[in-house]
Amino acid sequence: MNQSSSLHSLGIGIATRNSRDEIIEVYYPLVLRDPHSELVEALRSCCAYAGGNVHSVISEAQLTELLGSPFVAADKALSALLRQLNESTQDVCAMFISEDSAPSSVPEVYLKLHLLSHRLCKPHSLNLTGAFGVLQNVAWTNQGAIDLADLPARQLQARLKGELLEVMSVDKFPKMSNYVVPKGVRIAHTARVRLGAYLGEGTTIMHEGFVNFNAGTEGPAMIEGRISAGVMIGSGSDLGGGCSTMGTLSGGGTEIISVGKDCLIGANSGIGFPLGDRCIVEAGLYVTAGTKVLVLDNANQVVGTMKARELSNKSDLLFRRNSVTGAVECKANKTAIALNEELHTHN
Amino acid sequence: MNQSSSLHSLGIGIATRNSRDEIIEVYYPLVLRDPHSELVEALRSCCAYAGGNVHSVISEAQLTELLGSPFVAADKALSALLRQLNESTQDVCAMFISEDSAPSSVPEVYLKLHLLSHRLCKPHSLNLTGAFGVLQNVAWTNQGAIDLADLPARQLQARLKGELLEVMSVDKFPKMSNYVVPKGVRIAHTARVRLGAYLGEGTTIMHEGFVNFNAGTEGPAMIEGRISAGVMIGSGSDLGGGCSTMGTLSGGGTEIISVGKDCLIGANSGIGFPLGDRCIVEAGLYVTAGTKVLVLDNANQVVGTMKARELSNKSDLLFRRNSVTGAVECKANKTAIALNEELHTHN
Amino acid sequence: MNQSSSLHSLGIGIATRNSRDEIIEVYYPLVLRDPHSELVEALRSCCAYAGGNVHSVISEAQLTELLGSPFVAADKALSALLRQLNESTQDVCAMFISEDSAPSSVPEVYLKLHLLSHRLCKPHSLNLTGAFGVLQNVAWTNQGAIDLADLPARQLQARLKGELLEVMSVDKFPKMSNYVVPKGVRIAHTARVRLGAYLGEGTTIMHEGFVNFNAGTEGPAMIEGRISAGVMIGSGSDLGGGCSTMGTLSGGGTEIISVGKDCLIGANSGIGFPLGDRCIVEAGLYVTAGTKVLVLDNANQVVGTMKARELSNKSDLLFRRNSVTGAVECKANKTAIALNEELHTHN
Repeated sequence: MNQSSSLHSLGIGIATRNSRDEIIEVYYPLVLRDPHSELVEALRSCCAYAGGNVHSVISEAQLTELLGSPFVAADKALSALLRQLNESTQDVCAMFISEDSAPSSVPEVYLKLHLLSHRLCKPHSLNLTGAFGVLQNVAWTNQGAIDLADLPARQLQARLKGELLEVMSVDKFPKMSNYVVPKGVRIAHTARVRLGAYLGEGTTIMHEGFVNFNAGTEGPAMIEGRISAGVMIGSGSDLGGGCSTMGTLSGGGTEIISVGKDCLIGANSGIGFPLGDRCIVEAGLYVTAGTKVLVLDNANQVVGTMKARELSNKSDLLFRRNSVTGAVECKANKTAIALNEELHTHN
Repeated sequence: MNQSSSLHSLGIGIATRNSRDEIIEVYYPLVLRDPHSELVEALRSCCAYAGGNVHSVISEAQLTELLGSPFVAADKALSALLRQLNESTQDVCAMFISEDSAPSSVPEVYLKLHLLSHRLCKPHSLNLTGAFGVLQNVAWTNQGAIDLADLPARQLQARLKGELLEVMSVDKFPKMSNYVVPKGVRIAHTARVRLGAYLGEGTTIMHEGFVNFNAGTEGPAMIEGRISAGVMIGSGSDLGGGCSTMGTLSGGGTEIISVGKDCLIGANSGIGFPLGDRCIVEAGLYVTAGTKVLVLDNANQVVGTMKARELSNKSDLLFRRNSVTGAVECKANKTAIALNEELHTHN
Repeated sequence: MNQSSSLHSLGIGIATRNSRDEIIEVYYPLVLRDPHSELVEALRSCCAYAGGNVHSVISEAQLTELLGSPFVAADKALSALLRQLNESTQDVCAMFISEDSAPSSVPEVYLKLHLLSHRLCKPHSLNLTGAFGVLQNVAWTNQGAIDLADLPARQLQARLKGELLEVMSVDKFPKMSNYVVPKGVRIAHTARVRLGAYLGEGTTIMHEGFVNFNAGTEGPAMIEGRISAGVMIGSGSDLGGGCSTMGTLSGGGTEIISVGKDCLIGANSGIGFPLGDRCIVEAGLYVTAGTKVLVLDNANQVVGTMKARELSNKSDLLFRRNSVTGAVECKANKTAIALNEELHTHN
């Protein structure tokens, strides 16, 4: 095997096309980071893969040939999957990513989103530049993905038969759970977690929680607030109901927000700057990067005033609004955060 | 054609009935504002329309006769639609609105809600007085609209076969996307936009966004907050995650809230009075109509105190809470609001 | 009938099993609190019930025998239901609860959750200790409940046929509306009300509302905020959009929050202590148990400072943040809360 056979990642899946024969989404039951070079070689010879970031439809004959290759034949799980795919009534599609460059096709973006949600790549580790522009706006329905141009006719067809075409979302990104449900998570309401979210094992996303793509949690976490695109939450942290993490897309600044380990972000609060470990933000308090904060010593005496962004990534801080003076204060957090034991046992 | 043939609006669609044979919802694939007088005349003669705001079931024979009328025959799209309706296993229903008076039937309310969502009428331009009382509470399921009295039996029937009757909503108003998906919008989670919402082209409703009926956006907008009944948002404005616009129904006052152009309403903030253009409300700040606001000059000196309602519809204002004094302040907004370009390019 | 025939409660329903033959959820169309002793006796003899909190599969023969018992034969509705169950392609399961002890099986927890949602038992009146640990994490799909271990294969099977396995939730608790829709409620978005919620007649849960299990409303209420586990809301109260009631599970204290009658909790506000009747919390204000509050007299003069928890369960209080001084204030609420009449007429 020469070095040139290596791939960044590989996906084999089932594609949906619109009435103009364009691929509008891909479901990859097989997703591999750094696929084995022998598998890549087999694909090269069976599926005429000639390098680069490309996708191709795999024919029944090609799949059959692939099933006969020594590497595939020796891998029972892989063989079983490929045999199932060979019975698909739908297009079987392979996506080869040789280099992590800006994605240029729908199958390429979808493979990267799968890599994130399968925890094969961490948020910020993949080039997603321009992904928004590559994806089409799609109607996500109980009959699968439907191109918006095809939607009214499909709705009418269903209604004429007394059936419902349920349109659950009209968006570029689908929900994660119809593609990937990673191990050890609960997602009370899946409509609020996009494909491309990275949920660490032990994460619970409650009904009010939300996770955008290229964002998520490092490990166990109780999420009842909103994790904006690009935001990562450390292990053991708790985002209270309705709390907000400011994204960089709309209204926010350019700095990427993050939350460290064992933080407690109160209900209906919000942050516009990155927190270190073991920080607490009081319920209902929104601290933006530009918020002036009175810094208190252990005796609760004001020792100075800083903008919150100057406290970025610092640990053991408690942010609150003094309910008598109205001032936003910051002091060292001496309270151990004892997240409810039973709750986290059953994440 | 005499003047008397003119109609305010016309809908032809498919109705769902409950077990008491009452119409509980209507899906109108054909929705016309100011329908052509020749079409109205054809309906008058084929479907025995005798004037007024009435609905009637159209029989196969009537539809066939209508298809033969010169006006319909000359309109290919209309003919095709009517031919499809003639194959429906469901009731085909026509709704004629001659005058925009308070609606008195389910088909009449539904036609008005369709008119709004198809952008054929602006919010506040239609008489919806008493619409709440006309509509029935309905179970919206994967098998379509089901009367609540019929629901337990239907649930049991499904379960006996090992199937699920998924009850998605129990409400008087359905979700918009199962009736209308207007051009050029994204709705990340359709359960949060009611039929009767008016979404301007270029609007994105994110997962945390919400739009009630008779409310919406004039043009491009990024909506991650809640647009209450009756509230309109101007072009280019951005409602941050979880922000609130106070409605007039519950708890709010009687003044109708609105947001002008190019405003930025921060995450988890809220407004209880109408904003002009290019206003900013800081994340986390709720300004009700009665909030006393310190008005600042360009040098940040307090020049007076006003109730927020006195600042209604004024442009170029920035509202914030001073994080040192705790006072709510208002100053002229000198910051140009540069909404993220890529984001809005791909609305 | 001897005393020993009495049961706390009884459910007969349809169970879903995973591929390891474990019961993962039960839908009970028959739910009885204090079932008639003759029915219990009939079950004892037909279904070999020997006491205790147990569940058992009822065979066709047993159901037939039960249908022949005098008590069942005399009850037309019960007979009709049991005859339908006897045609089920699924397991018919009876759950007997003789004593309200900590539940030890999935059918037992589900019966208790049904009892709550059918308004047969009030929140806090049932022993649910350890229920979280008893329940399995389940994928709730358009094909019903699916064990997470079985999910990927089921997703692939659906996709191979060009169909969608829609995964709506991955959680221990299902949504209420697929089991119980109590009389006289609206639930705009059912994904946000868990089985085990108790919704009093006349309750409307708007899209932004949320109700956890063992929590709910006593009577008519307009809920656009979040009712955490264990929290009860009194009749005539209004929870504004996005408001938060602090739960005891995560981040909150140990005191159980409640809201009295005719309260108005503003949009995006929050409470961390129990309120009495006719209280108002201003929109956007979060009052935790530890918040220091300035207490005002009728002339708006500060008469003292208290922690909010010292005001627990007191009536006729108004909480607001002074928008000039930034202080959280409490004064006697002299404003009658006139909830919008039309709104509540059509709850």
